[in-house]
Amino acid sequence: MNNFEFKNPTKIIFGKDTIEKLENEIPKNAKVLLLYGGGSIKKNGIYEQVKAALANIELVEFGGIPANPEYAVLTEALEVIKNENITYLLAVGGGSVIDGTKFLSAAALFEGDTPWDILSKNIRTEKGMPFGTVLTLPATGSEMNSGAVITRAETKEKLSMGGPGLFPEFSILDPQVIASIPQRQLANGIADAFTHVLEQYMTYPIGALLQDRFAESILQTLIEIAPKVLKDPTDYKAASNFMWCCTMALNGLIQKGVPTDWAVHAIGHELTALYGIDHARTLAVIIPSHYKFNFETKKQKLAQYGERVWKIKEGSKDEKAYDAIDKTEAFFHKLGIDTKLSDYTDEHKGTAEEIAKRFTTRGWIALGEHKSLSPDKVEKIVKMAY
Amino acid sequence: MNNFEFKNPTKIIFGKDTIEKLENEIPKNAKVLLLYGGGSIKKNGIYEQVKAALANIELVEFGGIPANPEYAVLTEALEVIKNENITYLLAVGGGSVIDGTKFLSAAALFEGDTPWDILSKNIRTEKGMPFGTVLTLPATGSEMNSGAVITRAETKEKLSMGGPGLFPEFSILDPQVIASIPQRQLANGIADAFTHVLEQYMTYPIGALLQDRFAESILQTLIEIAPKVLKDPTDYKAASNFMWCCTMALNGLIQKGVPTDWAVHAIGHELTALYGIDHARTLAVIIPSHYKFNFETKKQKLAQYGERVWKIKEGSKDEKAYDAIDKTEAFFHKLGIDTKLSDYTDEHKGTAEEIAKRFTTRGWIALGEHKSLSPDKVEKIVKMAY
Repeated sequence: MNNFEFKNPTKIIFGKDTIEKLENEIPKNAKVLLLYGGGSIKKNGIYEQVKAALANIELVEFGGIPANPEYAVLTEALEVIKNENITYLLAVGGGSVIDGTKFLSAAALFEGDTPWDILSKNIRTEKGMPFGTVLTLPATGSEMNSGAVITRAETKEKLSMGGPGLFPEFSILDPQVIASIPQRQLANGIADAFTHVLEQYMTYPIGALLQDRFAESILQTLIEIAPKVLKDPTDYKAASNFMWCCTMALNGLIQKGVPTDWAVHAIGHELTALYGIDHARTLAVIIPSHYKFNFETKKQKLAQYGERVWKIKEGSKDEKAYDAIDKTEAFFHKLGIDTKLSDYTDEHKGTAEEIAKRFTTRGWIALGEHKSLSPDKVEKIVKMAY
Repeated sequence: MNNFEFKNPTKIIFGKDTIEKLENEIPKNAKVLLLYGGGSIKKNGIYEQVKAALANIELVEFGGIPANPEYAVLTEALEVIKNENITYLLAVGGGSVIDGTKFLSAAALFEGDTPWDILSKNIRTEKGMPFGTVLTLPATGSEMNSGAVITRAETKEKLSMGGPGLFPEFSILDPQVIASIPQRQLANGIADAFTHVLEQYMTYPIGALLQDRFAESILQTLIEIAPKVLKDPTDYKAASNFMWCCTMALNGLIQKGVPTDWAVHAIGHELTALYGIDHARTLAVIIPSHYKFNFETKKQKLAQYGERVWKIKEGSKDEKAYDAIDKTEAFFHKLGIDTKLSDYTDEHKGTAEEIAKRFTTRGWIALGEHKSLSPDKVEKIVKMAY
């Protein structure tokens, strides 16, 4: 096991009808900016619940934060924060709204020239404006971690940020919100959380026995609840396990003391940038070929995953490892998620070369847990995924 | 799954040679009281490491905190805190030293008549004097939770306390400390952590699929590493997993959203009080008869535990559940821990009646996850354990 540090101060408030607890979490004298996305919260009743809980608190609203939260939109929200003397932020939404709110938390107290520096110069945020979240779409884990990804259309950039000042003070997780999420987004959420676990697990054995089993626990539970959530999103038992799995998949716990990969995300982001494919679906496209291409370095964990998660009993270690990749691909298919780039676009020719070129330009010559995936290898992986 | 709230702000610093990081965690202008136990830290090199790391910080020492931390000793330490204007506490020890430090953290800022009120009136601590820990004995999980148990010999009481102000600010976990722990204490630590998990798991199914699997993960890992730790405490892989399992067993995570039992601890504490039997060993004495007595209400989870943790494949659900109890008892035996009260004392006659009487006097008429274990039932359980 590698040495590690772990600290996660976010307060989780989990369960039925918990949105009303908002009132107790935000200081009475705060002036709150309520941030949300495309407006689905006004259709599913969450907006009314939030407004009712905050009836006695001064509130300003800012809606319209898009998926892949856009810098230009966020700078408008930053203006509101400054003009209105906002002291507390409340994100009501999924990963995009929460990530956007994290940027605003950092930017509101940033003393440099331009808040874009936080992203372009990779400045860690030690202290941000305090904020909380009401999660409406389980997937990214952003409700219990301190990272965010922000997009800037103008320069075609998608950059990460983070720091210990960007943990939400609280996050309210009411699994009842899942009932009104469209099937496509439910499938994406399951695939996203599943991949988050794989990125922190599918590397090589390092003797972190408990972390391995925690990761496998999340994978097993997602596999167990996936068909139930998709069949009946009002199934509270399935919904609550889905929601808690998504949070635990990326709140830092399972990555402590172990090597991590994240090459799937790095490559997947480019497919979203090039073709607008849903984030989770790009991951499902890349995983099978990534694991096959890196089979020799990943096969020990692949076989362990096959044995423990998919209960594969027959065959050699290599056969179990291959079988585990096939089972993973079949799982995505059962979610209704295609796993070949050609399923999403007819114009995929040249994609592999283009992504390799982008990585080379950026100096990304060392992806993956062994820092050995150079752009020419990435090119081969993407071609295998056509 | 039940509704729950979860917040754990303790910073964990885990790994080889991490004690030197102490320097970065304590404010430079702090006046620190270093608290420790019987002095083993002066034999195994930990004391020197701590002193070296704090060379530039003003330090006062207080040693001699006994197992089952004693109120009378702690009041002496409280005098030191007040006389020396201490601003920060540092526990270097196992659960007893850490629990004692938590009491002092609360007592140092307590404004009531006597700090004994914190225990006798069950006053929650919202804010305590800041403190950190260097863990020298994995077992209790006190390094990452906000609870403590304090003993007062004068009145023969052993009372709990806690509150959100009693999380350590940081805890340093260097698995290398395990190399110098005596076999008896290693076995106790494994049995203690194992039982902590069981108390939060061996109840009835409530659809908390992920919490169940996390609990099973800790149990499986403890079973896997136990013989290795006992055979060679310098085995870093085994030691590091042992240490992390103990912390995760009682840092709040696996108890969220599920019913918990804790009757084993309640009964076990009396055996320690009556006969001075090591805490962990009292748990091993009570578990088999407790689970057999409450078989009907616990058998679903017992069978699940048998199947998943002990890999029992044969038999009916009831048979698997019984087999799981036997396997648990055999596990304690392999640790060198006896599981009958008569293994520890020849004078056990009347113990069951005495414990039932004590529980009646205290008004403890509703133990266990169903709040159904009345003193007459406790009497039967203890008799089964003779």
